[in-house]
Amino acid sequence: MAIKITDIFVRDIRFPTSQTLAGSDAMNSAPDYSAAYVVLKTDHPRGLEGHGLTFTIGRGNELCVAAINTLKPLVLNQTLECLTADMGAFWNRLTGDSQLRWVGPEKGVIHLATAALVNAVWDLYARCAGKPLWKLLVDMTPEQLVACIPFSYITDALTPDEALAILHRHNATKKIREQELLAVGFPAYTTSAGWLGYSDGKLRSLVREGLAQGWTHFKMKVGRDLEEDMRRARVIREEIGAERTLMMDANQVWDVDEAIR
Amino acid sequence: MAIKITDIFVRDIRFPTSQTLAGSDAMNSAPDYSAAYVVLKTDHPRGLEGHGLTFTIGRGNELCVAAINTLKPLVLNQTLECLTADMGAFWNRLTGDSQLRWVGPEKGVIHLATAALVNAVWDLYARCAGKPLWKLLVDMTPEQLVACIPFSYITDALTPDEALAILHRHNATKKIREQELLAVGFPAYTTSAGWLGYSDGKLRSLVREGLAQGWTHFKMKVGRDLEEDMRRARVIREEIGAERTLMMDANQVWDVDEAIR
Repeated sequence: MAIKITDIFVRDIRFPTSQTLAGSDAMNSAPDYSAAYVVLKTDHPRGLEGHGLTFTIGRGNELCVAAINTLKPLVLNQTLECLTADMGAFWNRLTGDSQLRWVGPEKGVIHLATAALVNAVWDLYARCAGKPLWKLLVDMTPEQLVACIPFSYITDALTPDEALAILHRHNATKKIREQELLAVGFPAYTTSAGWLGYSDGKLRSLVREGLAQGWTHFKMKVGRDLEEDMRRARVIREEIGAERTLMMDANQVWDVDEAIR
Repeated sequence: MAIKITDIFVRDIRFPTSQTLAGSDAMNSAPDYSAAYVVLKTDHPRGLEGHGLTFTIGRGNELCVAAINTLKPLVLNQTLECLTADMGAFWNRLTGDSQLRWVGPEKGVIHLATAALVNAVWDLYARCAGKPLWKLLVDMTPEQLVACIPFSYITDALTPDEALAILHRHNATKKIREQELLAVGFPAYTTSAGWLGYSDGKLRSLVREGLAQGWTHFKMKVGRDLEEDMRRARVIREEIGAERTLMMDANQVWDVDEAIR
């Protein structure tokens, strides 16, 4: 049964996170965490929708919304089957529009907008398949997975054939890794405590919350003031002990020599 | 006297050039030459304005217009004197807005929008100085000229001091070069005949027009079909003779080996 995308809603969603400095780092000092949020409506009998978003930090979110509206005609009235038959070609069609690519290509506002739409299609794809997206990908054959990737900017480093060979080489043990994933989860870190604008008290209590939730890797933002960074690092290290991992992110403000020092 | 920017108009201007294939090349097959056009209104007693534009090839031009509107508050109500006192800092302020830089930085839609606004300020600067822009730049001291440049992405290749040294080294002969420029003009080429979508008849008659206007360098678009490219190149060479220069532009569609071959 062909599922058709019958309507596309785009919403400009913003959270005033700059009031608490959640999300603050050396480059992005007062972000308002925001999203251009896409909902694909369909004629699916159970009313299934595809949801996708692109993240921004506030001002300019309206530009992503506008760009999604500009891209809409390339997705509206398409069937899911037609799009998912060749996800790589779908990406290329969105980014390759002969006039629109001028305001990109594949960078900035139009790139963020493309991501929201493509993510929404992936979401619809997984919902229609009745699986979470990770499982949809895991269940693909190497050939199916490689066909989803637009290789235009990748072939210098990896060709489709090389990608296929890697996937085939590990295909026999895929089931084992999937079971491990389900049993112990996927390695992850938290930045919940480490935003640059937080007081020491807040920092300390958020690290304790993270520890209580079982996190073993903590990321902190650095790069505004070296003395401050070292002091805050000491606070976190005190809390997490020597065994757990402390990570740092200077968000592009250190040059190479500075980072090494 | 301080000139204040009191209002900013932005217009979405499009020409249906895709109907004649003017501007067509291997990558951009059917462009509609367009511009997000900025006019800075001022309180100058003679009503002087600053005009700037950013070029697009059609769809997506509305995104540049929207982005200029988003950037407007960073320019509105500023005085020209305050902006021109440090043009490098002005650029950094526009591209460095802590939330807006997320949808760039300095690429795509927001970069094109920045260009239109900055160009409009330069235009106003030159009009208020009573000179064409090239002359405004030529009349600057090395120090003034270097101070106009935001060096963030340049210092790996050229530092402000190195740029200064180059300008000082050639400062003594600047007047001679300016006189030469006024006497014989600046070297240039024309693409008027070479767009990919033109018939041989049109190509030939446009090359003849270019010759009659005194052009010595002719650029043609290539890259859609090699046999066709060679045939069209022969037509142009026949018309311009062996002495004049034939240039080619594949607009990114050839890879390195292909271009060398």
